Amino acid sequence: MRWAAVLAGGVGSRFWPVSTAERPKQLLPLAGPRSLLGLAVERILPLVPVERVLVVTSRGLEGATRAAVPALPAANVLAEPFAASTAPALAWATAHAAAADSQATILSLHADWTVADPDGFRAAALLALDLAEQADVVVTVGVRGVRPETGYGYIVPGEALGRTARRIARFVEKPSAERADALLAEGALWNTGLFAWTARRFRAEIATHTPEVAAGLEALDRGDVAAMYAAVRPVSVDVGLFERTTRAAVVAGDFGWDDVGSWAALRRVRETDAAGNVVVGDAHLVDSTDCVVWSEDGTTVVDGLQGVVVVRARGITLVTTNERAPDLKRLLARLPGPLAGEGGP
Amino acid sequence: MRWAAVLAGGVGSRFWPVSTAERPKQLLPLAGPRSLLGLAVERILPLVPVERVLVVTSRGLEGATRAAVPALPAANVLAEPFAASTAPALAWATAHAAAADSQATILSLHADWTVADPDGFRAAALLALDLAEQADVVVTVGVRGVRPETGYGYIVPGEALGRTARRIARFVEKPSAERADALLAEGALWNTGLFAWTARRFRAEIATHTPEVAAGLEALDRGDVAAMYAAVRPVSVDVGLFERTTRAAVVAGDFGWDDVGSWAALRRVRETDAAGNVVVGDAHLVDSTDCVVWSEDGTTVVDGLQGVVVVRARGITLVTTNERAPDLKRLLARLPGPLAGEGGP
Repeated sequence: MRWAAVLAGGVGSRFWPVSTAERPKQLLPLAGPRSLLGLAVERILPLVPVERVLVVTSRGLEGATRAAVPALPAANVLAEPFAASTAPALAWATAHAAAADSQATILSLHADWTVADPDGFRAAALLALDLAEQADVVVTVGVRGVRPETGYGYIVPGEALGRTARRIARFVEKPSAERADALLAEGALWNTGLFAWTARRFRAEIATHTPEVAAGLEALDRGDVAAMYAAVRPVSVDVGLFERTTRAAVVAGDFGWDDVGSWAALRRVRETDAAGNVVVGDAHLVDSTDCVVWSEDGTTVVDGLQGVVVVRARGITLVTTNERAPDLKRLLARLPGPLAGEGGP
Repeated sequence: MRWAAVLAGGVGSRFWPVSTAERPKQLLPLAGPRSLLGLAVERILPLVPVERVLVVTSRGLEGATRAAVPALPAANVLAEPFAASTAPALAWATAHAAAADSQATILSLHADWTVADPDGFRAAALLALDLAEQADVVVTVGVRGVRPETGYGYIVPGEALGRTARRIARFVEKPSAERADALLAEGALWNTGLFAWTARRFRAEIATHTPEVAAGLEALDRGDVAAMYAAVRPVSVDVGLFERTTRAAVVAGDFGWDDVGSWAALRRVRETDAAGNVVVGDAHLVDSTDCVVWSEDGTTVVDGLQGVVVVRARGITLVTTNERAPDLKRLLARLPGPLAGEGGP
């Protein structure tokens, strides 16, 4: 049967000062009235019943995660003892599914995306699941890039694999803007992290290619998650598996995917006013264009500004620019410790 | 004897959202730890003992005004029943002094200025007082302009009157920038509102030239302030007296006068950091220049911005630009009534 593994352990600082270690991005209602996690689970329910949806998070976020998806069975929240990147998390989720269902196929995704076309998303996910089952490969869904993002990984497709998929020629991580332009021109795809595999194939590939995680497989077989995490080393499934195996394939999708990487990204994923502004909360804009204003603990008035981000939350007002918003980590590093510390590690 | 009349009735919105009808500009610590009113009184005490300093304010501000200048005798706070511009206020203060001292000379000033050179200020004030007494004229102190301000009135000096003063050729109110440049080039002075006159001459001039106020003089003679205010019509002493009489003179001063007309003006009157920013309260600036940041009810972080004004007070954050800050009234008119209403009329 088909299962979903939703990665929801992020503790990032990209949405400071709203986001905190206790209320990270995926639990925020960034795209609308519901949390990104809630939207992510809702998006896959037509493919996978909630009983087979697993959500991987951290121990600190276990309660908040359950609260964000009340329909989820309690046992389906997998709370990691510590973060070790995506390969250990997905190894646990895959083993959890396999223990209940030896024929399990897994769709893995992140809790903190937005998707403009959920039907297109599900169509691509079905292609990936079908391919994983029929061609016995691990599958990644690449999306057609719409701008030369320098913060993403790119997948260069190789030879055809059936009618719907391609082998993977190579991965390119975080290219320069010029290189990103060239990659898009040659048909490279953004590597999203939407994956599919059978539990059987995934385990075999991890055992062969990913010693960082393979060291924990025996403990995992015994159901001893603490011992498994004590044995693994952090590694992403991209680097630890996809870049090492040849039993991988890519399917292309086009469904308005966005990883909502910064406050400025809200201008892509939320409705803007006639002047291109995103306004959330008690905020009033006058003669201002292309701004993002989020005001959740008071009133914000923005007058005569272009392309600024203003966020008011938790007793803090942040004023920065769309250009600088993606690099909040750099800003937080330059603020006094107690202030920056609130943004999480 | 010499008296001072300090006009402290302002209820302006130029320092919204910090300023309110109950806490207007002159009661704010805009130039440093003390209120502008406190600084104004302190500045004249070497010339006039506190027993002869009168402060004219509104009834609503009477208590706050006393609290801001605790050394002032209670009877020296003159609380107007309503605002009627400067001529009625100064007629009352002048009559109040004359009732105690028939030989009174009055120095009149505003509570909401800053003065970089208090010694120079007092020297100019002494020149004006001497001239008022010796030449029996009403005297205005004009300051040498340092920029082509379009929001000020200008005084064009005429023929000499003794060694230190000039007659007034004409007044020019709020010129265009081009006209202001030309006025400065021909030696015109900013009309500050720093005046001097004997009580006797002032009353005679008002009786002759200022019917708007003369209608209330009889009531004022009886000490019936309510009847006086009921009889007068609002008029400024500039328009109602100086522009109408020929018994006027101007002395020139140069003492770093500033009327602190907007948040942006704080960059002139307060110390700036190496990047030209004024930072007051719990605020942190990174890679930002020429900003004014005032944060009194929480933390403000400004990142990568030039020439912006950010003010956090009373549950409101204002973000605007140095260029637009002088015209907050225009902004408030475009905000929802309850929000804008907090800024006072």
